[in-house]
Amino acid sequence: MGMMSEALTQILIPLAAFIGIGFALLQWFLVSKVRVSCGSKLESEHNDKLIEEDEQEEGIDSDDVVTKCADIQKAISEGATSFLFTEYKYLGIFMAVFGAIIFLFLGSVKSFSTESEPCTFNKENICKPALANAFFTTIAFFLGGLTSALSGFLGMKIATYANARTTLEARKSIGKAFIIAFRSGAVMGFLLAANGLLVLYISINLFKLYYGDDWEGLYESITGYGLGGSSMALFGRVGGGIYTKAADVGADLVGKVERNIPEDDPRNPAVIADNVGDNVGDIAGMGSDLFGSYAESSCAALFVASISSFGSSHDYSAMSYPLIISSMGIVVCLITTLFATDMFEIKNVTEIEPSLKRQLLISTVLMTVGIAFVSFFALPSEFTIFNFGSEKVVKNWHLFFCVSIGLWAGLVIGYTTEYYTSSAYSPVQEVADSCKTGAATNVIFGLALGYKSVIIPIFAIAASIYVSFSLAAMYGIAVAALGMLSTIATGLAIDAYGPISDNAGGIAEMAGMSHSIRERTDALDAAGNTTAAIGKGFAIGSAALVSLALFGAYVSRAGIKTVDVLSPKVFIGLLVGAMLPYWFSAMTMKSVGSAALKMVEEVRRQFNSIPGLMEGTAKPDYATCVKISTDASLKEMIPPGALVMLTPLIAGTFFGVETLAGVLAGSLVSGVQVAISASNTGGAWDNAKKYIEAGATEHARSLGPKGSDAHKAAVIGDTVGDPLKDTSGPSLNILIKLMAVESLVFAPFFATHGGLLFKLL
Amino acid sequence: MGMMSEALTQILIPLAAFIGIGFALLQWFLVSKVRVSCGSKLESEHNDKLIEEDEQEEGIDSDDVVTKCADIQKAISEGATSFLFTEYKYLGIFMAVFGAIIFLFLGSVKSFSTESEPCTFNKENICKPALANAFFTTIAFFLGGLTSALSGFLGMKIATYANARTTLEARKSIGKAFIIAFRSGAVMGFLLAANGLLVLYISINLFKLYYGDDWEGLYESITGYGLGGSSMALFGRVGGGIYTKAADVGADLVGKVERNIPEDDPRNPAVIADNVGDNVGDIAGMGSDLFGSYAESSCAALFVASISSFGSSHDYSAMSYPLIISSMGIVVCLITTLFATDMFEIKNVTEIEPSLKRQLLISTVLMTVGIAFVSFFALPSEFTIFNFGSEKVVKNWHLFFCVSIGLWAGLVIGYTTEYYTSSAYSPVQEVADSCKTGAATNVIFGLALGYKSVIIPIFAIAASIYVSFSLAAMYGIAVAALGMLSTIATGLAIDAYGPISDNAGGIAEMAGMSHSIRERTDALDAAGNTTAAIGKGFAIGSAALVSLALFGAYVSRAGIKTVDVLSPKVFIGLLVGAMLPYWFSAMTMKSVGSAALKMVEEVRRQFNSIPGLMEGTAKPDYATCVKISTDASLKEMIPPGALVMLTPLIAGTFFGVETLAGVLAGSLVSGVQVAISASNTGGAWDNAKKYIEAGATEHARSLGPKGSDAHKAAVIGDTVGDPLKDTSGPSLNILIKLMAVESLVFAPFFATHGGLLFKLL
Repeated sequence: MGMMSEALTQILIPLAAFIGIGFALLQWFLVSKVRVSCGSKLESEHNDKLIEEDEQEEGIDSDDVVTKCADIQKAISEGATSFLFTEYKYLGIFMAVFGAIIFLFLGSVKSFSTESEPCTFNKENICKPALANAFFTTIAFFLGGLTSALSGFLGMKIATYANARTTLEARKSIGKAFIIAFRSGAVMGFLLAANGLLVLYISINLFKLYYGDDWEGLYESITGYGLGGSSMALFGRVGGGIYTKAADVGADLVGKVERNIPEDDPRNPAVIADNVGDNVGDIAGMGSDLFGSYAESSCAALFVASISSFGSSHDYSAMSYPLIISSMGIVVCLITTLFATDMFEIKNVTEIEPSLKRQLLISTVLMTVGIAFVSFFALPSEFTIFNFGSEKVVKNWHLFFCVSIGLWAGLVIGYTTEYYTSSAYSPVQEVADSCKTGAATNVIFGLALGYKSVIIPIFAIAASIYVSFSLAAMYGIAVAALGMLSTIATGLAIDAYGPISDNAGGIAEMAGMSHSIRERTDALDAAGNTTAAIGKGFAIGSAALVSLALFGAYVSRAGIKTVDVLSPKVFIGLLVGAMLPYWFSAMTMKSVGSAALKMVEEVRRQFNSIPGLMEGTAKPDYATCVKISTDASLKEMIPPGALVMLTPLIAGTFFGVETLAGVLAGSLVSGVQVAISASNTGGAWDNAKKYIEAGATEHARSLGPKGSDAHKAAVIGDTVGDPLKDTSGPSLNILIKLMAVESLVFAPFFATHGGLLFKLL
Repeated sequence: MGMMSEALTQILIPLAAFIGIGFALLQWFLVSKVRVSCGSKLESEHNDKLIEEDEQEEGIDSDDVVTKCADIQKAISEGATSFLFTEYKYLGIFMAVFGAIIFLFLGSVKSFSTESEPCTFNKENICKPALANAFFTTIAFFLGGLTSALSGFLGMKIATYANARTTLEARKSIGKAFIIAFRSGAVMGFLLAANGLLVLYISINLFKLYYGDDWEGLYESITGYGLGGSSMALFGRVGGGIYTKAADVGADLVGKVERNIPEDDPRNPAVIADNVGDNVGDIAGMGSDLFGSYAESSCAALFVASISSFGSSHDYSAMSYPLIISSMGIVVCLITTLFATDMFEIKNVTEIEPSLKRQLLISTVLMTVGIAFVSFFALPSEFTIFNFGSEKVVKNWHLFFCVSIGLWAGLVIGYTTEYYTSSAYSPVQEVADSCKTGAATNVIFGLALGYKSVIIPIFAIAASIYVSFSLAAMYGIAVAALGMLSTIATGLAIDAYGPISDNAGGIAEMAGMSHSIRERTDALDAAGNTTAAIGKGFAIGSAALVSLALFGAYVSRAGIKTVDVLSPKVFIGLLVGAMLPYWFSAMTMKSVGSAALKMVEEVRRQFNSIPGLMEGTAKPDYATCVKISTDASLKEMIPPGALVMLTPLIAGTFFGVETLAGVLAGSLVSGVQVAISASNTGGAWDNAKKYIEAGATEHARSLGPKGSDAHKAAVIGDTVGDPLKDTSGPSLNILIKLMAVESLVFAPFFATHGGLLFKLL
């Protein structure tokens, strides 16, 4: 037994969760101190002239500007809320249907018998009936789905609450705007991390009332939590991704390219849809995604632990090691956040990126100490871990290394991503330079950059897999994933900061604020592109580790001893699995393309048919564009979603557990590469364009200014990158995670009834 | 024993090879009847005005045009010959060094002992010393390299011999031009298939003089033949690919985009380099590549057979089954060719593609009968195959199914590729349609098309792997690959036809022939783009099967019983292996990009500094552009080449045979997807552009004409696709094959001395 008593564990975990929630509320309170009041209807109708002449200097307290910002913020917030409600309505139906499938499939494992049976792993003990597991897995699935939806929704709410406030603070100084955007990101990060932990903690304790000492069944049911979280995340990411990029690409193609008006110009009918998209895609989608990773890695670790010595000796504190790591993570991130908000002040544009990078470094260093602490106190000095049929002896400092290497691999991935997507380094500058010879070379160099950016992250992931796998088998992988995600609150804070700044820039433009304000928000946004790429890097890196851990848990649960590439069943699974990311990307990219084409036609129609629109004397019809994005995303998210949800079911039911194991391994090793290269390529193109626009160096000025041939080529690259970096790329990590967790949940069914096709032949 | 006696086998194989060579010479003779005579120096100097006014109708026997064509042909041929000689000079050095490495590494397995030892697999027998194997493997390596170089060189020679002749025949009719281009392709196809077979046959018989009854050692040494062939192919593909695309992209970016002059205009300084590139890249590179696949699949099948009952019972005819299949393939392709050249006549542009498709279908149907015949006569009705330590009983009709499913999978891949890359179907038309909204949507839709085109080929490959693997283990895979390659002569004929037509079009433009001639060659070329994509599809599909067979042979030779994904050593190999195609693509694409930038600068310089160049009164300096392409390709082919050649050596030596097995499996399942999507995307973009240019339908005319915004967007897509479809994509199948065959050759060394790093830890 470790040194921490069960009682202490039972206190510390919820305490950490409440601290996290409290800290989030505090940050929210600080953000709310920036005053934004909505204008009365009369006032806003009065103000129907959309473009104002550039004023020399805006009075900080100009009520007019504040009112305008508030109105725009309201429009964005209402659009985002209405979309999420519609989306969640559809997803509610999906969850109900899929919940029923889970219950029926898992219940059928022992033909819906209500009798207790010998346990699967610890055969001397008696476990609860499979029907009970089916029931509780379904409940956990719903809880996971709800928490995921809540995470996305709260993130969207705070982001749309903060965007106008960031704009208004940008009038004072760049540092003040930065703090508001960053604090709002922190609200989301802490709420999400704390909620995820709390719901999981409560669920385990409630389930325990029924399961008692049957920890095998208890933690098997809990895996439903991961599946629920990830299912919602899939549709959130894909739906949100299509929404935001259809609007973005459509707005840019007509506005920037054809009509030559600036980005986020209020005359562009798609501008509100574009800004709504940032919140439902980059914020709500990202939140659900990372929550899913967090839930899944916890579930994978808990499941493997439950069939190891922690489970059989009923050592609650050691069993809760994954939750304690997450609790420690909340505390560490809290301290880290104070460094950004209270210890240093941003005075200059060039300080933003280093400051965000410092956040990553500080949280990693502190967390390493935290992990050592937790590993020493919560774990017994020696224990055994289930290793595909055999038992492996592991020491507590082994687990320290497993968690730490995951954590540091995350940092390596983050820094590599920054190198390849920030305009401060040569890769993006080379891409910008290639715009001199046109869009084609820009696209070629961008694609090559994306491919190249895969190398170091893959070596980092491989190293952490090797170390943690060797030290503690699949449990090692699961806690390595948790290590990478332990600083999720900080990661999300710097990630959410990006779209908030992007929105702030949009509001500044729409409210007709002066160029200097727009320049400040643009600078925030450029750093935001890099942090968004870093966030995606984390999401993908952790997804790789999580999927592998889930894969290991699935293999254990399905009773497979080896996954031998030299068996034809496995090899064809591997090959087809490696193809799935391509199929999925083809679907999502084409969806964005088609939806964008519809948007282009609508925007063109409005410019051609609404008199006075180009002159700024008439208002465009924003609502139709919002509707196009909404309809397209809801319709188009179904086929890729079905591909991901059905593949494990079909592979497992018809081809059996071994082929499915091959599919999971194949999609994992192939999907990681596609995802990393897609999101880095997109980030690099975006920043290459911004590099030319900003014209901060001699080289950048030689390529610019806005409207030059090189800039036009850069805009094309940026547009190509949009669906890559915001739709297909980030959805892929959900693809690999979700298929793995779904396989784990359905493993008892596949092991009993699977492989129909081979049985028939 | 089967029904065929050893004596009959010894006669039939060389006979088939000689028939193939004779048929190739006959076709060459028929092509040579089109008269092309070089002009005297005086005449050509007289003719220094480069652009001529469009003549109403060109006299068929106009000596002037014939002379001009001959001169251009000579320039292209000399450029290509000179490049290949330079390339082969460098590769000669590489071959010598690598040959020495092979000898030293393999000799060191038993510390250079000259004493005979018990065999590895059949332990009762006595085998020749490892030193002898090292020596003969090195010899086989040199023979493979030489044959590969010869294949590429002969292909280039006939292509540059046929291009002007195709142009001249295009004056008479499209059917006559088609026949010339197709016959020339057939020369290459038959020479290559027959040479490959003959050299392999002779080598085996010569080696047998030393090895006698030690067939294990004999066929182990023969694997060097595959390695030699593939090593040359790698550099041929990469070097040729960079050469051709640097010139092509460079020529297009300045000529078509900036100066608005037609493709292949003689005023463009890079035009000769572009045409040379077609011959050294698409012809010589492709020839070496497919020869490599052919050699490797034969070697893999022979090696597995040698440690199976064929080998231990010394059944020569059954042992030679792979060679007899290839012999039958030559005869079948000969009959198939007659259908194209003598049975039907092409009268109309629209008949070209169906006629080429028919070739594929006819050869597949005939070959199926041929396989049944060979399997029945050459094989005993029942025998055993080595299956990773155990023996598997196989019947002769099992092998019939293995070979046939490979053959038919090839047809499925070919037809799918045609569907996705031909402008006759909706996918390419949709891509063309997306050009309406600019280059960005074109690129997005093109990438999505490429991803989507992976699905069916992967299922076809997976099905053939499952069937052949289940029926006859790794031997089944090897002969399935041979099945796909058995109609290689026809495949190469329709593939080589593409670049020959492309060159013919270039010569027509440069010789200032009328638009009607150019339209005819353009129509030939559009079909050529599709057949090139089909050829690449075959190359990739067969590469997948070949690599898997080599992988199986490697695993057998290295003494591995299982390749378990659940072992960390294997999994990290899998992950890193899946990353290699991205690393490799990043290198090759950036090489093309950088070389193209240099070319752009040179072409711009010439247009700016040579007075009268745009007006057509002064000649450009073609030689400098040829030199830029040559230097760039020779320099830039080294890093990607080193990546491929060194990875197995490093992985095997430091991480051991299991990690290397993971690397091979990972690069295989990931590389296939990248390769297929890259080459189909590129083919689709090229044909979308041609679709708009040709304006054959109402829809196409609504997008055109040349120079419209949609056409400009299509040109950008085409340029992006160039390195994808002609450099990185097709090189990837060599990456996966070469790493596998290299691992097989070095397997004895890795098994004895490998895994240093893990031994040290």
